[in-house]
Amino acid sequence: MQDQQQTLSLYMDWMSQPSRCVAIFCMINKIPVDISEVKILKGQLRSQEYKRINPNMRVPTIKDGKFVLYESHAILKYLIASRAQYIPEHWYPKDIKERALVDQYLDWHHTNIRNAGMYIFNYFVLPSLGIQSKQNKETIYKLFIQSLKMIDTIFLADKPYIASKEKATIADLSCYCEITQVNLIDFDFSPYPNILKWMQRLTAEYPQLVEGHQPFMKFVQKIKEKQNL
Amino acid sequence: MQDQQQTLSLYMDWMSQPSRCVAIFCMINKIPVDISEVKILKGQLRSQEYKRINPNMRVPTIKDGKFVLYESHAILKYLIASRAQYIPEHWYPKDIKERALVDQYLDWHHTNIRNAGMYIFNYFVLPSLGIQSKQNKETIYKLFIQSLKMIDTIFLADKPYIASKEKATIADLSCYCEITQVNLIDFDFSPYPNILKWMQRLTAEYPQLVEGHQPFMKFVQKIKEKQNL
Repeated sequence: MQDQQQTLSLYMDWMSQPSRCVAIFCMINKIPVDISEVKILKGQLRSQEYKRINPNMRVPTIKDGKFVLYESHAILKYLIASRAQYIPEHWYPKDIKERALVDQYLDWHHTNIRNAGMYIFNYFVLPSLGIQSKQNKETIYKLFIQSLKMIDTIFLADKPYIASKEKATIADLSCYCEITQVNLIDFDFSPYPNILKWMQRLTAEYPQLVEGHQPFMKFVQKIKEKQNL
Repeated sequence: MQDQQQTLSLYMDWMSQPSRCVAIFCMINKIPVDISEVKILKGQLRSQEYKRINPNMRVPTIKDGKFVLYESHAILKYLIASRAQYIPEHWYPKDIKERALVDQYLDWHHTNIRNAGMYIFNYFVLPSLGIQSKQNKETIYKLFIQSLKMIDTIFLADKPYIASKEKATIADLSCYCEITQVNLIDFDFSPYPNILKWMQRLTAEYPQLVEGHQPFMKFVQKIKEKQNL
């Protein structure tokens, strides 16, 4: 029994990009996990019960024994450090410079490509629920497009993965889960050929990426049917 | 000569919070550094010369030999990993759970308290230059205030540092450099008593925080004089 991994509790919503990223990472690496869904669109982030677990009222959150942690990138790094014997090193290389380039992308991600999800949430999800966004549409869209260009022409210009020439890292998973959010608007990726090839490469190598997006794709289908009524 | 540290090149602007954070970290830990100022308000981020160094056109960037890295949090972690013998461990603890809590704050920082700087830049710096912001003032201000409350009542509620009960970590430096940006508007911190005490504690322990803010404070003074004309 000594070699058995402790089951992790994961509080998440399949509609949330960072939640999917952690869940898919656990699927790929066979980390035993107990999933509790916290549905954002049903207001469950603000329930007293969830607030006691994560006062920041966002998903994902993990509980590993008594240890509680939120923020998806911090969670991925913690899982890799605490379960090193089960997880291949390529996800977060130990080499100082290689690791720094993964960290660089993961930090860049927050204030750049996260605008993909922001744009979709504010201009497609909220209106489909009859709620008007207060954000500036033009600014968010501009940041989102700039970020896609940066991924296509810088991060993926000279290598098959976002932050590595060799194998996928957690930077690829986080980026992929964010970008797929634009499926809600039939986004045309043809101006970004490196992103297109990279998405095909990743899903071929990790079919869990497709599997982990099924609940979200069902939701996409439902919203589209509603728009076509 | 073997034990001598390689001098780091740091491209930065003293007006930029993440730039100050890296420069102050180097001051505190006596990391030899060659500073090249890249002045944001003079448009120097977009110069061809700087774009060749950092295609993301932001500051800070470091060059360590031939290795180029941007994003302040990734830079801090890289400096700690590559110069472990010169830097006390408390800045980024090796213990897996302690480190995870520092990472958690650093990720949270990007999409939350970074709105302090966003708010100040868009509503005080840009207008003082005759430029109108396209961002939604109300949304950014709300996020900024929510973030301050979270720092005061969650991160600093039961401990003297943002992510540690023992000593300052890089989470404290990054948070401090962001929050000081509001000096531009004579912000009243009295509703946030834990933040006030923490700022006093940090500057008493690390006077380099005050020293590293002098060019910025001179700029604050200049803007205020202009407003009073």
